[in-house]
Amino acid sequence: NIFVGKNMQDINEKMNKLGSERSAIRELFEKGKELKKTYGEKKVFDFSIGNPVSSPPKEVKEVLIDLITNKNPIELHGYTSAQGDIFVRRSISEYLNEKYSAETNEEYIYMTSGAAAGIAIALKALVNVGDEVIVFSPYFPEYKVFIENAGGVVITVKPDEKKFFPNFYDLKEKITKNTKLLIINSPNNPTGVFYDEEVVKKITEILSEKEKEYDKNIFLLSDEPYRELLYVDKKYPFVTNYYKNSIVTYSFSKSLSLPGERIGYILVNESCNNAKKIFESICGAGRSMGFVCATTLFQHMIPKILGLTSDFSVYKKNRQFLLEKLESIGYEIVNSDGAFYLFIKTPIEEKEFSKRALQHNLLLVPSESFGIKGYVRLAYCVDYETVVNSIKSFKSLYEECVKDGNK
Amino acid sequence: NIFVGKNMQDINEKMNKLGSERSAIRELFEKGKELKKTYGEKKVFDFSIGNPVSSPPKEVKEVLIDLITNKNPIELHGYTSAQGDIFVRRSISEYLNEKYSAETNEEYIYMTSGAAAGIAIALKALVNVGDEVIVFSPYFPEYKVFIENAGGVVITVKPDEKKFFPNFYDLKEKITKNTKLLIINSPNNPTGVFYDEEVVKKITEILSEKEKEYDKNIFLLSDEPYRELLYVDKKYPFVTNYYKNSIVTYSFSKSLSLPGERIGYILVNESCNNAKKIFESICGAGRSMGFVCATTLFQHMIPKILGLTSDFSVYKKNRQFLLEKLESIGYEIVNSDGAFYLFIKTPIEEKEFSKRALQHNLLLVPSESFGIKGYVRLAYCVDYETVVNSIKSFKSLYEECVKDGNK
Repeated sequence: NIFVGKNMQDINEKMNKLGSERSAIRELFEKGKELKKTYGEKKVFDFSIGNPVSSPPKEVKEVLIDLITNKNPIELHGYTSAQGDIFVRRSISEYLNEKYSAETNEEYIYMTSGAAAGIAIALKALVNVGDEVIVFSPYFPEYKVFIENAGGVVITVKPDEKKFFPNFYDLKEKITKNTKLLIINSPNNPTGVFYDEEVVKKITEILSEKEKEYDKNIFLLSDEPYRELLYVDKKYPFVTNYYKNSIVTYSFSKSLSLPGERIGYILVNESCNNAKKIFESICGAGRSMGFVCATTLFQHMIPKILGLTSDFSVYKKNRQFLLEKLESIGYEIVNSDGAFYLFIKTPIEEKEFSKRALQHNLLLVPSESFGIKGYVRLAYCVDYETVVNSIKSFKSLYEECVKDGNK
Repeated sequence: NIFVGKNMQDINEKMNKLGSERSAIRELFEKGKELKKTYGEKKVFDFSIGNPVSSPPKEVKEVLIDLITNKNPIELHGYTSAQGDIFVRRSISEYLNEKYSAETNEEYIYMTSGAAAGIAIALKALVNVGDEVIVFSPYFPEYKVFIENAGGVVITVKPDEKKFFPNFYDLKEKITKNTKLLIINSPNNPTGVFYDEEVVKKITEILSEKEKEYDKNIFLLSDEPYRELLYVDKKYPFVTNYYKNSIVTYSFSKSLSLPGERIGYILVNESCNNAKKIFESICGAGRSMGFVCATTLFQHMIPKILGLTSDFSVYKKNRQFLLEKLESIGYEIVNSDGAFYLFIKTPIEEKEFSKRALQHNLLLVPSESFGIKGYVRLAYCVDYETVVNSIKSFKSLYEECVKDGNK
């Protein structure tokens, strides 16, 4: 073996680390698979993954079959421009303008392979080595990967631990002359917390103040895959209406239950400073990463399904049931209005709690993965039956932890 | 405007350059669109883009409709693991082993969004800053983008200008202790040249010699989107059969005429030194760029269409017709056996030739984009009618150039 001990440079070590270290979520996922083999699917309560369980709306099937049956296959499956088909981008812009009273422009929409690619591309387009990118703890772990891939430095802002909004005082402290952008994610993964208009106003006011103080542009990247997953009757505050230098990443993964199809977009607010330059850089960043265009079949589907969503009633039902039962057991749960996650305060240290949960066939992600301690994330995008049957395990787990805590 | 003259750091300038500078190919594409508006579709002979014109095999339609109609949509459209569905990877491995008498292993196949993503990911996985990556001139321009994105240095090897195989003497010269890998692409874009077994043996012998000389691994990345597009009855020399440290990138874009659907794979030869580490690094590189998984619908299609191709007879017909007619006019054309490109020696400087061609409504890409002078690339993946009607223009263009050359 030529390699061992001599030529460690066959691979890029950073990439190897990213590829070989299993994330806590994947680790759980694998353990869950083992448990299911041993105890059977129905006896394992897998709350680890945000994989939608509600079928796509029937129109997805109808539209796909119609396109494949009737559209010229050369056009249906051919390249679009890197930004995406202009009719698709226009339909999205028109939809957003009507739905959110926004003023978006199709020329500033770039179709992507889901929101993950969108965030990775947007960061690469904007960030220079050493730029600081702010995220609110707890946060989706891949933000860190994408920020670092772009050469940026991750800066975390503490949460207000009552409502799990950002700690505004800490946000002010953390913005410096090196701040390139702030990522927000509402409804939030992992907490489920929704930032209503008041919260968004507060955040953007701070950004505006700091833009003046440092005499520079600070960008706001709003990552919105859970935009439609709201359990309160409040309007969704669309960021371009509140802040000039804003960028939105979106995915149809959760709203249409199509996570594997990787279809989404980046929207640059037309009135952003340097919007044109930013959009060009997004095109360049996509190009550098080997994105050629978003899958054309799914691009062509978009204009016909905008505004539709999967049936979210199963999530709503799961959520209500879990909140009631878990709180009656004694669990403290962060108050949240969206997505399909509950963030549960752990009666003992969170990794130990997650380990013990496994012994009760409960799969819960410890919050350390999200940059914070003392909680687990419960993804309730599962069958109602799973939810109902899990309560007994939650109860034994709680009693066991409390008993041990009182020793 | 906060930005102008003060804060040039809003964006990443490298990405902006990549996104704002139009490639020569795109430039031509845009000019072609204008010409078509002025003269009508049928009067413009667009040989600029490698966009397949032959419909996908009918089985693509059948399989897609069957999957959408009958498969559980949660599974059909759900996430797969980042590497791709194991059944899909197994089917590819089995297919390759049978077709090419290869010894591939499904565990070392990573499904990607087409070959471009595959190359970008593989390079990012292997290359460290300053590593040298060798390409054979003329080469697909995006190789340079992907190599530089990974921090590598592009080293070009001259062609043997008779057959447009690599110049083996130059290849030996260019391999140094810093060489990380060599990219080959056969059948070739832009020349159409096919490297038969003899050529592949020659290349891999040189690599093996140099591995010994420098006592290090030198990887061979074989980019094979045109693998099935062969107009001679010769076997395709599958690189893992000839060289241990080899990696293959593949796309179904050309073989199935699905360029917009972005489905392909990376294969790491199982007997590669450090195959496991390399594969992990590929997973990490994909992750860092926001690839979550290859589109699941198209992944699920793969096992059912392996070995099928579009009807290539239109390309064959175009090729024969063009070769005969253009050579009888006086053009010198590189002898080639595959893909859907002709590489034509220009009677005058190639950019000037391409400009003059435009005046005859002929769209031909000057070879400078491919890292070499004195040629244009003609992509004959167009209607036969376009080919036939273009000859008059080729004739006038040639006569005009020769006349001017003789002034």
